[in-house]
Amino acid sequence: MSKTNAGHYFEDFTVGQVLEHATPRTVTEGDRALYGAIYPTRFAVPSSAQFAAAVGLAPHPVEELVAFHIAFGKTVPDVSLNAVANLGYAELRFHRTVIPGDTLRTSSEVIGLKENSNGRTGVVYVRSTAVNQRGEVALDWVRWVMVHKRDQNAPAPETVVPALATVVAPEDLVVPDGLDFSSYDFTAAGEPHRFDDYAVGEKIDHVDGVTLTDAEHMMATRLWQNTAKVHFNTEARPDAKRLVYGGHVISLARALSFNGLANAQLIAAINAGAHTAPAFAGDTVYAWSEVLDKAETSAPGVGALRLRLVATKGRDESMALTVQEGERAGKYAAGVLLDLDYWAFIPR
Amino acid sequence: MSKTNAGHYFEDFTVGQVLEHATPRTVTEGDRALYGAIYPTRFAVPSSAQFAAAVGLAPHPVEELVAFHIAFGKTVPDVSLNAVANLGYAELRFHRTVIPGDTLRTSSEVIGLKENSNGRTGVVYVRSTAVNQRGEVALDWVRWVMVHKRDQNAPAPETVVPALATVVAPEDLVVPDGLDFSSYDFTAAGEPHRFDDYAVGEKIDHVDGVTLTDAEHMMATRLWQNTAKVHFNTEARPDAKRLVYGGHVISLARALSFNGLANAQLIAAINAGAHTAPAFAGDTVYAWSEVLDKAETSAPGVGALRLRLVATKGRDESMALTVQEGERAGKYAAGVLLDLDYWAFIPR
Amino acid sequence: MSKTNAGHYFEDFTVGQVLEHATPRTVTEGDRALYGAIYPTRFAVPSSAQFAAAVGLAPHPVEELVAFHIAFGKTVPDVSLNAVANLGYAELRFHRTVIPGDTLRTSSEVIGLKENSNGRTGVVYVRSTAVNQRGEVALDWVRWVMVHKRDQNAPAPETVVPALATVVAPEDLVVPDGLDFSSYDFTAAGEPHRFDDYAVGEKIDHVDGVTLTDAEHMMATRLWQNTAKVHFNTEARPDAKRLVYGGHVISLARALSFNGLANAQLIAAINAGAHTAPAFAGDTVYAWSEVLDKAETSAPGVGALRLRLVATKGRDESMALTVQEGERAGKYAAGVLLDLDYWAFIPR
Repeated sequence: MSKTNAGHYFEDFTVGQVLEHATPRTVTEGDRALYGAIYPTRFAVPSSAQFAAAVGLAPHPVEELVAFHIAFGKTVPDVSLNAVANLGYAELRFHRTVIPGDTLRTSSEVIGLKENSNGRTGVVYVRSTAVNQRGEVALDWVRWVMVHKRDQNAPAPETVVPALATVVAPEDLVVPDGLDFSSYDFTAAGEPHRFDDYAVGEKIDHVDGVTLTDAEHMMATRLWQNTAKVHFNTEARPDAKRLVYGGHVISLARALSFNGLANAQLIAAINAGAHTAPAFAGDTVYAWSEVLDKAETSAPGVGALRLRLVATKGRDESMALTVQEGERAGKYAAGVLLDLDYWAFIPR
Repeated sequence: MSKTNAGHYFEDFTVGQVLEHATPRTVTEGDRALYGAIYPTRFAVPSSAQFAAAVGLAPHPVEELVAFHIAFGKTVPDVSLNAVANLGYAELRFHRTVIPGDTLRTSSEVIGLKENSNGRTGVVYVRSTAVNQRGEVALDWVRWVMVHKRDQNAPAPETVVPALATVVAPEDLVVPDGLDFSSYDFTAAGEPHRFDDYAVGEKIDHVDGVTLTDAEHMMATRLWQNTAKVHFNTEARPDAKRLVYGGHVISLARALSFNGLANAQLIAAINAGAHTAPAFAGDTVYAWSEVLDKAETSAPGVGALRLRLVATKGRDESMALTVQEGERAGKYAAGVLLDLDYWAFIPR
Repeated sequence: MSKTNAGHYFEDFTVGQVLEHATPRTVTEGDRALYGAIYPTRFAVPSSAQFAAAVGLAPHPVEELVAFHIAFGKTVPDVSLNAVANLGYAELRFHRTVIPGDTLRTSSEVIGLKENSNGRTGVVYVRSTAVNQRGEVALDWVRWVMVHKRDQNAPAPETVVPALATVVAPEDLVVPDGLDFSSYDFTAAGEPHRFDDYAVGEKIDHVDGVTLTDAEHMMATRLWQNTAKVHFNTEARPDAKRLVYGGHVISLARALSFNGLANAQLIAAINAGAHTAPAFAGDTVYAWSEVLDKAETSAPGVGALRLRLVATKGRDESMALTVQEGERAGKYAAGVLLDLDYWAFIPR
């Protein structure tokens, strides 16, 4: 028993500590196919090698979230096996595309610690970095999780709360090498809407819904080597349900957003994200988006939209993020599963 | 909301109109693996690169229905998002094999329109063509669907009903370049039965049955980027069931037909097809075939069988397509899900 | 109907008979991805092409059990379609790695026959050999199955029971060409435990559990072209359940064993295996291991552990293989699904 991984508890973390996560993982065309079987994605760049090459991306990259899930999954055994909750993301940036044949590995540096007043849990902040087989950074991000203490009597560490950007500044977005939207084929991509057609404050109802199954979310989560037991084991929770991995909802909502945002081809950065309610098999997930900001880039024909992507259980045509009145006023509206703030590249 | 695709209604179609469908899609070895995970296919050509090369097909093609489903899926958002029913197929021909790395895109020409007497719906006939990245035709076909009108007061278009062949003439079948069955390995293929062993009128009970699950049919349908919401969303139908994509039943029945038709290696053409009843998770699907016709080809060792492939819910050892007596006489027998008429290439 | 495969019955087998199984099957990167989606595998060699190359294995091999399942699946239509039970395995050895692009075919020689005293069934022993497209042996093994007689009045064959090794001798283990663990990266692999850290008699509770679904086990079983109908058809059993393929439990248990045996990278041989109880969707599967023996090899840095891998329905922290007392004393404990005895290569 001493040989099995019990995960880290709050008192095992120290600021400055670097965790080298197992196990490196090679991306394949099989990942692309499975991603397309599990999520209704139709973005032209990851769908078509020919389209991708025509906008300067050859060999054919996989969807950014494939890279994110793989990179993230590596951190689970060391960071969040004993987590109470994943509290937030910040400063996630994609630095380069990931293509089949690339091998990703991830390391994390502990950048903050704060014990909770109950003395039983604490918040751990880590900056994680995923690199490819050449050691080049593919993506990096910060997340913070609430983790159990092993021993309630362990002394509290000095509180260190890192200063985190609420949004990645447009000038810090990394346009993939070679990306050129100046000859972009809107017909092939599926929609005519370009950068100038989106206005800050505009909301888009993505209309379509997908009902979750256990087999699908388990296959997805396992593909990313994410080992958190609540996703797989009906004996791990009192309600005998398998909790859907939050990243599954992110990918599902992003795929659904094609309908209205088909040209938001590439995710550039994730500014913030909150999993606001659990999702389970049988839930039907819908999505809507709000345009939060717009920015230009120096790449030919490439603009950036800052988008709020909201996933809901059941369709909410009012697209209300929060409760307007009553004692829950200001809280997330019932049915909101995900509130994700990200930047995407779109043709101008 | 104005940015999301509402699909076309009957009055949006005009004869001669050409629809260029999004989004191009690159075929990968991941598609082959998923196809084999979802359908019990064992045909030697798509299973083995070595076997395929030995009959003249290298690089290793994917199953014809992989190409069909991908090509077909592209037409859904533009043709059948508001369809009441898919009424029929005709004149489907495979013009060349599709191999991993090929990128398929599809366009459709409206070739017929006929408003129904109720004034609320109409029938749209389209000829769809899928081409690869070199612009070469991979397959083409005609289908007709019943589509809702947006506005019941819209005037009826002139009725145009295209003349369609009830069967693809044997001389119009396209044998893939290089196909040569003269050194065919029957042991490796799994059965000894060749062209001469099949008689017109012969029926074959394929014996095996597969019980459907929601996760599997959704993954398959999504893989083809087919977006029709009834397949994915339990809130889209009053009975809260997810309707199984008709093509899922085609692929399942074709795979089951291996048992008795293992050497009917390649689908050459689909003459006609009817989805005669809906299928749902929990249904157990069986199949039987009838030999409708036989034809020679000019390729070495290659004959063609015209086959009726019938999928049923529950096994019907009597292999009765229609009701024999009573008020439903001549109608499809209870349990018949699919009646497909196709040509296959088989060694002589 | 005469064209469909009814499988072989006991009286169809003769000692010395060689069965060439259909259909050859090419391994792809899609198989690797699906294997990782269906089983929670994280072993560094099959996960990372970079890690594999660093231990001398390039191109990137797939997991040994991928090869086993494909090779095994081929034998089902000819050997065990009419089987009452799969009774045992012996002398399974992997002779070389299998990489994407390899095409496997399998043949079996009947090496033993023994009619049961009831006159209705008999035991068939076969030695099966899977070769790649160059005719090189990838793996071989013996298994014995209880098969129905077609005709109870058919005369019993002469009884031949082959002498089988209870364990593959360490000197008969085949180390893959080039394997070199002398610069093994334990951090990347996920655990520090090496050959010397394991003691004979030691037991390891792998802690994690996975709840089975029908969609997942059917997809896995189909991927291997295993056609046994009890896995797919709810109408094939009186209880309307789909029996989980025994190999699914093997792969699941092996993947779970990562937690405590992360460095037991490669399966070298399977000495024996028993599927001691059926598994069904809804069951939650756990695993534990016992170190049975240890051996050195001549390859640099490579040792071998002989391990018992036990899968259970529900977690048994006592790790008891058999009942200790009462009328079932000595029988497998309730909940034991699998008792597998195998050799694995591990860094010294």
